[in-house]
Amino acid sequence: MVPRVWKRASIAALPLLLFIGSALAQTDPLPSWNDGAAKKAIVDFVQATTTQGSAGFVPPEERIATFDQDGTLWVEHPMYSQAMYCLDRVPALVKAKPELAKVEPFKTVMSGNREAIAKLPLKDLEKILAATLSGMTVDQFRAEARKWLDEARDPRWKRPYTELTYLPMQELMKYLRANGYRTYIVTGGGQDFVRAYSEATYGIPPEQVVGTAGATKYGYGKDGKPFLTKEPKLLLNDNDAGKPEGIYFMIGRRPYAAFGNSTGDRQMLEYTKAGDGMRLAMLLLHDDAKREYAYGPAKGLPNTQVGAFTQALYDEASKDGWIVISMKDDWKKIFAFEP
Amino acid sequence: MVPRVWKRASIAALPLLLFIGSALAQTDPLPSWNDGAAKKAIVDFVQATTTQGSAGFVPPEERIATFDQDGTLWVEHPMYSQAMYCLDRVPALVKAKPELAKVEPFKTVMSGNREAIAKLPLKDLEKILAATLSGMTVDQFRAEARKWLDEARDPRWKRPYTELTYLPMQELMKYLRANGYRTYIVTGGGQDFVRAYSEATYGIPPEQVVGTAGATKYGYGKDGKPFLTKEPKLLLNDNDAGKPEGIYFMIGRRPYAAFGNSTGDRQMLEYTKAGDGMRLAMLLLHDDAKREYAYGPAKGLPNTQVGAFTQALYDEASKDGWIVISMKDDWKKIFAFEP
Repeated sequence: MVPRVWKRASIAALPLLLFIGSALAQTDPLPSWNDGAAKKAIVDFVQATTTQGSAGFVPPEERIATFDQDGTLWVEHPMYSQAMYCLDRVPALVKAKPELAKVEPFKTVMSGNREAIAKLPLKDLEKILAATLSGMTVDQFRAEARKWLDEARDPRWKRPYTELTYLPMQELMKYLRANGYRTYIVTGGGQDFVRAYSEATYGIPPEQVVGTAGATKYGYGKDGKPFLTKEPKLLLNDNDAGKPEGIYFMIGRRPYAAFGNSTGDRQMLEYTKAGDGMRLAMLLLHDDAKREYAYGPAKGLPNTQVGAFTQALYDEASKDGWIVISMKDDWKKIFAFEP
Repeated sequence: MVPRVWKRASIAALPLLLFIGSALAQTDPLPSWNDGAAKKAIVDFVQATTTQGSAGFVPPEERIATFDQDGTLWVEHPMYSQAMYCLDRVPALVKAKPELAKVEPFKTVMSGNREAIAKLPLKDLEKILAATLSGMTVDQFRAEARKWLDEARDPRWKRPYTELTYLPMQELMKYLRANGYRTYIVTGGGQDFVRAYSEATYGIPPEQVVGTAGATKYGYGKDGKPFLTKEPKLLLNDNDAGKPEGIYFMIGRRPYAAFGNSTGDRQMLEYTKAGDGMRLAMLLLHDDAKREYAYGPAKGLPNTQVGAFTQALYDEASKDGWIVISMKDDWKKIFAFEP
């Protein structure tokens, strides 16, 4: 028989016990990840590289982790959100320069014919990108991009694009940062576009975004104040080999961990993995047609227009010791808004 | 008469009192600066921008300070140390490619005729820079640069170049960092060259060095391992308008404080000063022919080959509210090695 006083004590301790239980449950830094090879690889990597005395210990200043964005941190189907942004900017562009209404590819975009727009060749898309991403001051661009990001909605989930980030990747970035890693986005997307939301969306400040970037031009306004204008001149094509080249240029250190999802990330993962000591290279496989999309070797959907997850990439991953993350099997939850 | 017990107490307290006195003396964060307008401007700026509730308060993530290097953080006379490095590399280059021995400007450099070398036109210097700063892997370059920095000595002080940094500027950088500022080097010099020593010399990590940079090229060795090779292709000319352009590209934020010493820093200071709120722009005037050098409007020496402190720059400083630092009057001590 339990003495009365103990009973009272246990009841009094109940909230404390519940608190401890919940605190213990919360010690899992990756609650949206299922237990498995991918989660284990991450935790092992972080423990080995941050435990003083461990063979794989990495000094804090060297702790760099790089993340591709489209398809790695957020949804890239059916179209990169930045491509959506550029198409959405065309009417305003044509209003400012009416002569463009009769010129391809602007004529097709203005027609609103989605099928024809989807069929525009890469060269035409590049023309649209150049026209909608240059010619304004950097402040004007940022304001326009932020306005669009506030208002635009993804066609499937009817939510702002910035809500379509993957919760498990957000947890992974926080976990790495809590362990002294600086997290960088290294994206084939536009550096300025991503910088417009990276801090609010991922906690990644502008100086830690490396992306495809055009030149800017310094000039003076009528009031004598200087400003920078976005020029239609490519400075850094941050895809494929451009990723390690961009990392070297902007960071000057080799990452210890890198995350991607397509052939555009291949060289970044190779370069990361080729460094001394323990390195982590991971590829996200989109194999969840139900909760998100399935494409690449998962064959549920065709590859995206640019970076594709090919069989050759899959084979290189096996050979070089990269870990493939299965969206379907490794992730409990994909989006924060899921019930 | 002092009671005996008090006497004993005072003697016992003496070390403590001495400690407090020395702690109070140490609270001057800029001990190598004389009291004056320059020192006051720095302290006022830091207090206003870091005091919560102050009109000029700047959130920690926005606290960026940019420093030119040559002539601002260390000695640039009689020649940029990087130019010395490139000239010193020519014999090794000619040994590897003997055909260069008969070709200008390498022939002149190999002659050892200092007068003729000093007279080489800019175009020839650029040829030497391109030849000695490209063609090797980035790791080879870093190793060569570090070896040279260890061994080379400045002709006047007979010390490594990395000891010729200005103590007051080192104190200034530490003071800013202690107040949450991230300090960046924004140099017309080579980004890779400066990154080879910036962390050890200034406490500035490679990712906070923006400099003139060439492209790199990703490739694979015989062992299949990837590496980056330095290419003779200019990616960023980080001088003049290239400084704010480079800052926007690499950092994506406007600095709150910027420091320079020549016309090559003009646009960086203008751009900094044109931002909202309280901004600090400072120019170092080399007017101390005895302890260092005097040039520019100080007229003790001719202007250096590239960035010059002209009268026009001096006038813009007065008009735009930049603070001119007089090396002679504002600095108690110039180098840490001074007695």
